[in-house]
Amino acid sequence: MDSKSLFATLCILLLSISAQSYTRRAHTPCKEMVFYFHDIVYNGENYKNATSAIVGAPEWGNRTIMASPNNFGDLIVFDDPITLDNNLHSTPVGRAQGMYFYDQMDTFSSWLGFSFVFNNTDYKGSLNFAGHDPLMNKTRDISVIGGTGDFFMARGIATLSTDAFEGSVYFRLRVHIKLYECWKLL
Amino acid sequence: MDSKSLFATLCILLLSISAQSYTRRAHTPCKEMVFYFHDIVYNGENYKNATSAIVGAPEWGNRTIMASPNNFGDLIVFDDPITLDNNLHSTPVGRAQGMYFYDQMDTFSSWLGFSFVFNNTDYKGSLNFAGHDPLMNKTRDISVIGGTGDFFMARGIATLSTDAFEGSVYFRLRVHIKLYECWKLL
Amino acid sequence: MDSKSLFATLCILLLSISAQSYTRRAHTPCKEMVFYFHDIVYNGENYKNATSAIVGAPEWGNRTIMASPNNFGDLIVFDDPITLDNNLHSTPVGRAQGMYFYDQMDTFSSWLGFSFVFNNTDYKGSLNFAGHDPLMNKTRDISVIGGTGDFFMARGIATLSTDAFEGSVYFRLRVHIKLYECWKLL
Repeated sequence: MDSKSLFATLCILLLSISAQSYTRRAHTPCKEMVFYFHDIVYNGENYKNATSAIVGAPEWGNRTIMASPNNFGDLIVFDDPITLDNNLHSTPVGRAQGMYFYDQMDTFSSWLGFSFVFNNTDYKGSLNFAGHDPLMNKTRDISVIGGTGDFFMARGIATLSTDAFEGSVYFRLRVHIKLYECWKLL
Repeated sequence: MDSKSLFATLCILLLSISAQSYTRRAHTPCKEMVFYFHDIVYNGENYKNATSAIVGAPEWGNRTIMASPNNFGDLIVFDDPITLDNNLHSTPVGRAQGMYFYDQMDTFSSWLGFSFVFNNTDYKGSLNFAGHDPLMNKTRDISVIGGTGDFFMARGIATLSTDAFEGSVYFRLRVHIKLYECWKLL
Repeated sequence: MDSKSLFATLCILLLSISAQSYTRRAHTPCKEMVFYFHDIVYNGENYKNATSAIVGAPEWGNRTIMASPNNFGDLIVFDDPITLDNNLHSTPVGRAQGMYFYDQMDTFSSWLGFSFVFNNTDYKGSLNFAGHDPLMNKTRDISVIGGTGDFFMARGIATLSTDAFEGSVYFRLRVHIKLYECWKLL
């Protein structure tokens, strides 16, 4: 290969890398994990078992029964156990802590702002999530907007699916986390 | 060009690209869009038309009238139609769903956490937003912190301007979205 | 150096840069700043001095006294002065505006969603934060999820430490901001 064609080849390579910083291509996640978390909403009678509580409601609602229709306006703060399988009684590997509120008038849909908090032998650190959760859909995607510790600066997508539920009081969510941006602090 | 000067040239190019991953330069957005959304706050009498409701308020406030002064502490959950023009009655192209709360004591200012949700022929997916909205300013910028579907992993800036309002009950916001980080999932 | 070994060297360099866009390495922040902010929660008697107020609470709580145990479920909206040193009465350089809520049942821990808002000679713009704040820990990290103005598209980590507090009514937080992703809009 002569000097000129080498130069041309490398320029094309460089430009393609430059372009990547503009529209980035993701093939496979740099990290994938699956967890379950379990939410038991306080309903006035289950204080001992509850892991979450309504803390805001519209004028027509209250803090022990979900507002009608479609729970619209109810804001719930949660402190839910994270498990590796779908058993509520498995040893938790972390806590899912944050809030969600119901924000659609004509169906059940919510908006989530929360963290996964890990402090075990496998993972130390937290992942921060935000996004729209149209919970009647079989799967739905929210954003991983950042992380700390082992998940320093992480970004990605979390695919949620409702693994089980009882009314609006018990939920079990399966969370498939796919990080597409991983960072290492040297 | 001889081998040495070629090598030197390419090293400079490489270093400049490396440096970009440190301080990144944005020239033009990889995607630009303009939308309007329309918020009608429930005030105790407009249940049929309302698209949002106060769900939290300070001790001196309530859930049908904004708190005084400056609505401080009022938290509103919304499910607002998104339109392509500034007409409330145009066919919606999506929903703006989320919350805002008033967080300044000496003027009107709010903090937003919400999503744009699209499911039409042009766009499928969601964009997630967060940020400070000093709504007395003519324009103000908030962050696009992530996205899903067609907006997989997007980041950028949304410039808000109040296109019209009536008291604290009706708002029409113009949203100029500029994505500077676009991703493609292969 | 002949053409072939030059080509090989450059290919290795290129691949290492490509790989960086997959798992990115951070050595030192592209920007570091330290601030303090001061939060005085309204408790029914300190309206004149208060910079924040409870706007949501669980059924067993109210909006002037933190809920028991561990303030779980209390949601606070704040408009706090930011100072360069730990003196509440120093001239503010900006405002910390947003919310936090207590989201752990067995200890004091909260979740933050807020902005730092600057409009002075040094900085114009805002930084947006989200994350888990286990406030009994000496230091804890939250995410910088975006920014505007001088902090256009910024990402990073903020390390919080409680510099002083009185009950659950006065807090002084030290915030060490480390941005690892800085952008320039040309």
